[in-house]
Amino acid sequence: MIQRWETVASRVRGDYEVFRVREDRCRSPLTGAEHPFYIIEASDWVNVIPVTPEGQIVCVEQYRHGTDEVSLEIPGGIIDPGDASPAHAARREMVEETGYDADAIVPLGSVAPNPAILNNRCYTFLAPGARLRHATRFDATEHLAVRLVDPADVPGLVAGGRIAHALVVAAFYLYEQHLRTR
Amino acid sequence: MIQRWETVASRVRGDYEVFRVREDRCRSPLTGAEHPFYIIEASDWVNVIPVTPEGQIVCVEQYRHGTDEVSLEIPGGIIDPGDASPAHAARREMVEETGYDADAIVPLGSVAPNPAILNNRCYTFLAPGARLRHATRFDATEHLAVRLVDPADVPGLVAGGRIAHALVVAAFYLYEQHLRTR
Repeated sequence: MIQRWETVASRVRGDYEVFRVREDRCRSPLTGAEHPFYIIEASDWVNVIPVTPEGQIVCVEQYRHGTDEVSLEIPGGIIDPGDASPAHAARREMVEETGYDADAIVPLGSVAPNPAILNNRCYTFLAPGARLRHATRFDATEHLAVRLVDPADVPGLVAGGRIAHALVVAAFYLYEQHLRTR
Repeated sequence: MIQRWETVASRVRGDYEVFRVREDRCRSPLTGAEHPFYIIEASDWVNVIPVTPEGQIVCVEQYRHGTDEVSLEIPGGIIDPGDASPAHAARREMVEETGYDADAIVPLGSVAPNPAILNNRCYTFLAPGARLRHATRFDATEHLAVRLVDPADVPGLVAGGRIAHALVVAAFYLYEQHLRTR
């Protein structure tokens, strides 16, 4: 049996607006020795696959500072304190980033972005019957372009590196299982 | 067209052994205004799906400090300076963590763990014909248990939250595409 480690001390080491870094001193259940671990504390995230009545996926293209690249993704973001639920956050992000809205927001599952160093989860949704209904509303640091993508093209876009965001690829895994089992 | 942002200043804000946090001041190509962005600098990662001659996937179970949970994953880790290539790192991690080895290491693709806040990539490999050949070699802070998993059980393990690591779910997406197109 794999056992949990006991945390014997914990302190915040850095605060960086969208995440904090915490240092834990933890005791090994095997050896009793203490080791430091660094945890990135972040709010939970959401992403959503909006599908138009014509069967196209509503994607967004945006510059990403981590990789210094323009990235093709599905809409998503951070769950805000004002969001009543992950589904609410997903719908809000979809409307803000694309202007598309849908009557239904269907949960596809959730993942842990990186259990080793991140403490949060990412919830994935499907928005069937998504239609352009609103103007987009970007933050001061957001500038996105909507791209309609044929679902049949997604595997090639992933293989070619155009769709590279691991949480987007994981969302497409959950979507494929949903299509297979519904 | 989505444009890149220009970085006008950059400094390291925190060093946490397995990652560093960098603060960039960047100029919006749209407004000219400057904004701060926090980037987690990490080495590239690898993971690998070892498949035994009997068709079972060699998984590992371990305690993860980020989520404070025991996590079911495929072998993987950080590419070390001594690794000649991502494939070399994948094979090394597989052998160290499971004792299984394989003659072939097949690239399945790569993803960006989080283009918004992480600067690195994760390379995924398949190790067909993996057999138990070595003793495991853990770091002082590693304690893993090998679990053989039937590929048919993976979707259910993901849906049930037992397999939750986004990079592992993304690896299974790449593996499914590989099986479909080979």
